Amino acid sequence: MAIRYPNGKEYRQAPPNKKMEKPLKDATFSNRGMTLEEDINETNAYYLNRGIAVIHKKPVPVQIVRVDYPARSAAVIKEAYFRQASTTDYNGVYKGRYIDFEAKETKIASSFPLKNFHEHQINHMKQVESHGGIAFVIIRFSKTDELYFLPFQALYTFWCRMNEGGRKSITKDELSACSMLLPLGLSPRIPYLDALERMYF
Amino acid sequence: MAIRYPNGKEYRQAPPNKKMEKPLKDATFSNRGMTLEEDINETNAYYLNRGIAVIHKKPVPVQIVRVDYPARSAAVIKEAYFRQASTTDYNGVYKGRYIDFEAKETKIASSFPLKNFHEHQINHMKQVESHGGIAFVIIRFSKTDELYFLPFQALYTFWCRMNEGGRKSITKDELSACSMLLPLGLSPRIPYLDALERMYF
Repeated sequence: MAIRYPNGKEYRQAPPNKKMEKPLKDATFSNRGMTLEEDINETNAYYLNRGIAVIHKKPVPVQIVRVDYPARSAAVIKEAYFRQASTTDYNGVYKGRYIDFEAKETKIASSFPLKNFHEHQINHMKQVESHGGIAFVIIRFSKTDELYFLPFQALYTFWCRMNEGGRKSITKDELSACSMLLPLGLSPRIPYLDALERMYF
Repeated sequence: MAIRYPNGKEYRQAPPNKKMEKPLKDATFSNRGMTLEEDINETNAYYLNRGIAVIHKKPVPVQIVRVDYPARSAAVIKEAYFRQASTTDYNGVYKGRYIDFEAKETKIASSFPLKNFHEHQINHMKQVESHGGIAFVIIRFSKTDELYFLPFQALYTFWCRMNEGGRKSITKDELSACSMLLPLGLSPRIPYLDALERMYF
């Protein structure tokens, strides 16, 4: 039965947020049609709300060229361009330590191509580690929905191998050997601090 | 004499960067027409290049509504809006510690109005401190070009006083009592890590 306002107009509940409007491609637990970014954002919100850690995604860097200021309205950006990020996407604090990471997805099933990283991201993570911060990457194989927590030091070994003329990717076997498989959960969705805790604390 | 291309067209050197195009209001040492943000960005670059700390400004948060993809050109954002930042502007790592701060300017000479901060920024800094990070603010009095390093704990005391019905600003005397005056320099321009070092390490 439709619920109606006193004026007879039908009451329709607004969707709680935009995310809910999206059709779920696959409603199974392991692949709910969420992007890696959405899963990490929800995980960070979980950690924040429970007082576990303060970790946020940085805004997308944009070069703003033209802004209109319509009378009595909010400023409208009319021309802007995407800039390449100079750092990683996520950072924050956990148990007093500085945490810094990047999340990447691949559709390839058997290996992870290193071209997913930019030189300056690698340099940034290297600098972070040299100052006592903790840098790592979360890698998602979208075909199988497998997630790996790879410490920066291991990633850097593969990166250097590539720069010395070696292979341009990390094989699944190599990943299994030097990273931790992250189980998918409901809350938090991607419990990456469990892996971090076991590896660094 | 004008330099010309072989086709006779006059050569005009492009300005090295946008910053140089701005007229310097006042070329004296203490007020070079630089904004507080520019000074802090240069300071962060100094700290980064000398291996002292890794601290970056976060990009301006923007809600992107419409993007055009012209053939063979970069994507152009055609409609976007400024969003309110949910955190502070700057964060990073120094000696393994998580650093988080906000920089604010006022044209008022005798006090600093607390309305320059948003509730969520205060909450964010409170969370950072509760996780062992270091949060603070840099306050600039633009009339006199005085800069203060104010630890979050002191700021929070004034914030609570306001919420309990007290004054809505921090007087200059109060600031002098519980913050550190930052000398203006050339490199780095705003040596805020010196103040941080003396207060927290």
